[in-house]
Amino acid sequence: MAKRADILVRFGQRVRELRKEQGYSQENFAYACELDRTYVGGIERGERNLSLRNIERIAETLDISLAELMEGV
Amino acid sequence: MAKRADILVRFGQRVRELRKEQGYSQENFAYACELDRTYVGGIERGERNLSLRNIERIAETLDISLAELMEGV
Repeated sequence: MAKRADILVRFGQRVRELRKEQGYSQENFAYACELDRTYVGGIERGERNLSLRNIERIAETLDISLAELMEGV
Repeated sequence: MAKRADILVRFGQRVRELRKEQGYSQENFAYACELDRTYVGGIERGERNLSLRNIERIAETLDISLAELMEGV
């Protein structure tokens, strides 16, 4: 059985997918989240072990629940 | 409309609920998660802004998905 990708990678892919679905550029999304653009880039590349508060900030910007954000992650 | 409790508090309550449902004491649960017991206590009291890796560790110990862990949070 193939090993699942690391949690940070899986989460980053999910964020990128949802961000694009909602038509945000990475820059506009970072601005809406009040996070640094390079930080959002790092999240999407699976380089950031982000905190619950920042996870919530992303869910709020996307206007979805934390459970929806984690769907498939 | 009543303001929702802080995300850390809501998450902590969810962890406590699931931990108890599965019959873990706080001490046994901390041991199973390989986290410090005082740290788990802090999570359940909503005092810890924990990271995605530790959130995953909790989900794995409870044998549920991240989406399930976040249900209702």
